[in-house]
Amino acid sequence: MDYRCFALQKDASTPLYRQLADHIKRAVKEGELQPGEKLPPIRKLAEQLGISPITVSQSYDVLALEGVASGSIGRGTFLLPRPSITSAFQAKPLQPTLEGSQQPPAKPPEWMAALQQQLRLPRAALLQRTLQNAVKRWPAEEPLLHFSSGNPDANLFSLERWQEAMTQAGISLKQEEDTNNLQYGASALGDPALRSFLAAYIRRYGIYVDTESILLTSGTQQGLDLIARSLLQPGDSVFVEEMSYISALDIFEQRGVQWETIPLDEYGLQTEVLARKLEATPQNRPRLLYTIPTGQSPTGVSLAQERRRHLAELARKHNLLIIEDDAFNELYYQGVTPAPAIWNYETEGRVIYLKSFSKTIFPAVRLGCIVAAPALLSVLVRQKQIFDRPTPISTTRTVLHYLNALAYERELTHIRRTYHQRRNALLTALEQELSPFGCHWSIPQAGFNLLLSIPEHLDSIQVVEEAASRGLVLAPGQFFAPVRTQQSSNTLRLTFADKSPQQLEEATRRLAAVLQTLVQTERRPIHSTPQFTTEV
Amino acid sequence: MDYRCFALQKDASTPLYRQLADHIKRAVKEGELQPGEKLPPIRKLAEQLGISPITVSQSYDVLALEGVASGSIGRGTFLLPRPSITSAFQAKPLQPTLEGSQQPPAKPPEWMAALQQQLRLPRAALLQRTLQNAVKRWPAEEPLLHFSSGNPDANLFSLERWQEAMTQAGISLKQEEDTNNLQYGASALGDPALRSFLAAYIRRYGIYVDTESILLTSGTQQGLDLIARSLLQPGDSVFVEEMSYISALDIFEQRGVQWETIPLDEYGLQTEVLARKLEATPQNRPRLLYTIPTGQSPTGVSLAQERRRHLAELARKHNLLIIEDDAFNELYYQGVTPAPAIWNYETEGRVIYLKSFSKTIFPAVRLGCIVAAPALLSVLVRQKQIFDRPTPISTTRTVLHYLNALAYERELTHIRRTYHQRRNALLTALEQELSPFGCHWSIPQAGFNLLLSIPEHLDSIQVVEEAASRGLVLAPGQFFAPVRTQQSSNTLRLTFADKSPQQLEEATRRLAAVLQTLVQTERRPIHSTPQFTTEV
Repeated sequence: MDYRCFALQKDASTPLYRQLADHIKRAVKEGELQPGEKLPPIRKLAEQLGISPITVSQSYDVLALEGVASGSIGRGTFLLPRPSITSAFQAKPLQPTLEGSQQPPAKPPEWMAALQQQLRLPRAALLQRTLQNAVKRWPAEEPLLHFSSGNPDANLFSLERWQEAMTQAGISLKQEEDTNNLQYGASALGDPALRSFLAAYIRRYGIYVDTESILLTSGTQQGLDLIARSLLQPGDSVFVEEMSYISALDIFEQRGVQWETIPLDEYGLQTEVLARKLEATPQNRPRLLYTIPTGQSPTGVSLAQERRRHLAELARKHNLLIIEDDAFNELYYQGVTPAPAIWNYETEGRVIYLKSFSKTIFPAVRLGCIVAAPALLSVLVRQKQIFDRPTPISTTRTVLHYLNALAYERELTHIRRTYHQRRNALLTALEQELSPFGCHWSIPQAGFNLLLSIPEHLDSIQVVEEAASRGLVLAPGQFFAPVRTQQSSNTLRLTFADKSPQQLEEATRRLAAVLQTLVQTERRPIHSTPQFTTEV
Repeated sequence: MDYRCFALQKDASTPLYRQLADHIKRAVKEGELQPGEKLPPIRKLAEQLGISPITVSQSYDVLALEGVASGSIGRGTFLLPRPSITSAFQAKPLQPTLEGSQQPPAKPPEWMAALQQQLRLPRAALLQRTLQNAVKRWPAEEPLLHFSSGNPDANLFSLERWQEAMTQAGISLKQEEDTNNLQYGASALGDPALRSFLAAYIRRYGIYVDTESILLTSGTQQGLDLIARSLLQPGDSVFVEEMSYISALDIFEQRGVQWETIPLDEYGLQTEVLARKLEATPQNRPRLLYTIPTGQSPTGVSLAQERRRHLAELARKHNLLIIEDDAFNELYYQGVTPAPAIWNYETEGRVIYLKSFSKTIFPAVRLGCIVAAPALLSVLVRQKQIFDRPTPISTTRTVLHYLNALAYERELTHIRRTYHQRRNALLTALEQELSPFGCHWSIPQAGFNLLLSIPEHLDSIQVVEEAASRGLVLAPGQFFAPVRTQQSSNTLRLTFADKSPQQLEEATRRLAAVLQTLVQTERRPIHSTPQFTTEV
């Protein structure tokens, strides 16, 4: 065909390369060009059309990207003999929607509505909806001050080092030339190189296991899911701290489990209460306890060493399985290292230990691990193999190179120090601004959060709404309560990891103003709720 | 302390740096060195001990790796105040196991046994066990010839390009400096950059959707799991081809579904039979069909275009949801591109389209995607967010750079051509060696497999065992039958992707010898099973 008939407009808003690509696609559609046909050499077509070879080259790239053509160096660019654009349908034209507007309708067909309703809405989505509704009154163009994110501070991530680690990971995979790593046949435990490193790494937590006792997961989230679907049936009940991690609650609740809550104090889960519950109902009681022993979420408290020992004794005595979620054990404050993991005290395999790297690398890394006794791990590995296969090798290998550097140790120290300063700034601001209202709060030993108890005649939703009207976003405590209580409705989760001391002070001042307004409106005496309280 | 008392032995088998690290650990354990204490500068200690500074540096690295010490440039190396080795336990010594042999017992405590039994063993594990038992009689040192792997050929992967892609991925993440990509807050749909590319890429299959209609998963396996747990309840029934993909069967069966099978012929799933079943039981019938339209597994047959159109009509008429697993659509043979995806024929959102990159990149890449109408996708995305979060960014970004290169198109052509040659070699060998026995086989249009029907008085397990005794590994067909039938027990799945033409000829010759032996033993007339048959 004669390409000179393409009418290219140099002063149009559509770039020339896009115009040329569109002309070629139209010619294919109208049968002027056939699949399999070779497009003219770049320089020749550029000359014919009086445009730059770069423009033609860009056009061909667009066509390749859109699946219309395929080029290779030395051979030229060919129109693809594939069901691209319309060629595959020319024999029997289908719906008019095939011309490019094939987007399915936005409105769900009626038969899908029932489906969507049968799924239980997760707490995280409900919380998000509550916060979105609350901030509707705040002008969209004004920035919001989030006191509720739960995120690590992205500015503490080292993207330079991540880039290096990806490069090194690629080199190591190439050098090994071990195609076994690339096949389906590889063990669902995941990359042996990273497991071997982690087995050495977690000795610093006092955990001595071999490489075969570690299962790599795409984060603690997947780890908890494997546990819930392997070890629990709908209707089973599970012991849990009276306030806990919203996303863990979601996973277990999606599985259909019931909660049996254990109260917390400043030394963590009250093991004496657990002991009484276990003694009281030896038969019909949970087989499993989910706990965050260090930097408990959302209170930030850490389980005392004596209680860890006690918990292990209870596990042995009552055949209780403990899920130890140790996401925060490297982000401890007050210069005191956390007590050894509960894992250390139970040597008969009744602890499943989970470690996340979302808090110390970054959340999107999606890499965590499960450590468990062989008999239990084999069940979890089998589920991982059925439902997912091993965690991706490009991720595991990059994490290996990221962690296996002294720089990581330095970064950890820096991250810990930074969060410690923020925690202290928040505690000081709370003392100054909120103790006049009779508020109490937990003292975080590790992690990103603390739990604030507000005067008991106020409801946290009321506070959240009033705060939102001042551009302050707060998370009401009841979303973190496995079983909602009056007490949990009197709390807020405050997070400090991703805010500067100045922002935390400002957020606390705004919260004080909110409480001032509400207390005046209510005209009732100030009365505090004694919960999770150790004053500074 | 005086480090000169360390007795280092230069001619010992333990390297010097290891000896030095051990001495320091012993000194920590015995209280001669305290946590928090600074170790001597590298040069100074090297001088004192009369060894190389490199040796000292290696020792400090070992200590850092084992969590005993932490070093930073300019500050020096410090013994860590952590629960490392024994320091954390000195106050109250625990079990003797803490000294390094803390491996949990290999034997599962009795309370775990019940747990393991309640989980349904997957087909893939049963198949593996069957094959392992069969080959026990074969001497371990002799190589086995696998006619059953189902793996792509690892030698066709481009590790050079993967390495480049990892490097480019790291650079792009660094350059973007977009910390939103790294946080929890990122959409569970996954990396927008890869989704945007894939939206353009899949237009070559005639699928026009925007970036928000694509959900990235860690492979088709996770995609199917999200579908099964979102759209099905235990006890639900599902339409499926009479022979299907073993790992898909496993996922649905773990969810507790029942199968309703539809027969296959050389044009794929018999939609007329499906139509009759749908008409016959308008109320109490499956809401969902799982199908592999191109290169069906294990038969390799492709669904004819007219049947694709018919299937879409049936979906509309009977409100049937179609799960279209298109793992093999790029590995088609006979120079004929596959018919357009079923997706193209159903514009009201009743098709969920799944694409895998395990076959054209490599299985351990763990990257696939789900394309679905917004209402349906929103359900799947929510489940992905609850149970897993977005697919890891290091993986998605690497895949983007790997796919977004003209070299990938060249590689695809090469892979397709290679597999095509192997398929032809196998078909020729079958014709030559097995037609005398009255065997029949499916003709693969795409994919890695074909299904062989053996004489009906032979049982495939018998053939598998006899073959194993000759070092040939075969996969008995019944494992791929959703509902086991007499007919399925007369089949074998043969795979050709990872074998050379010579190996395929040799494998076929051995299979012929096996049949010869069994037919002679049985002394019965040769009689073939007419199933999935189009002779070459």
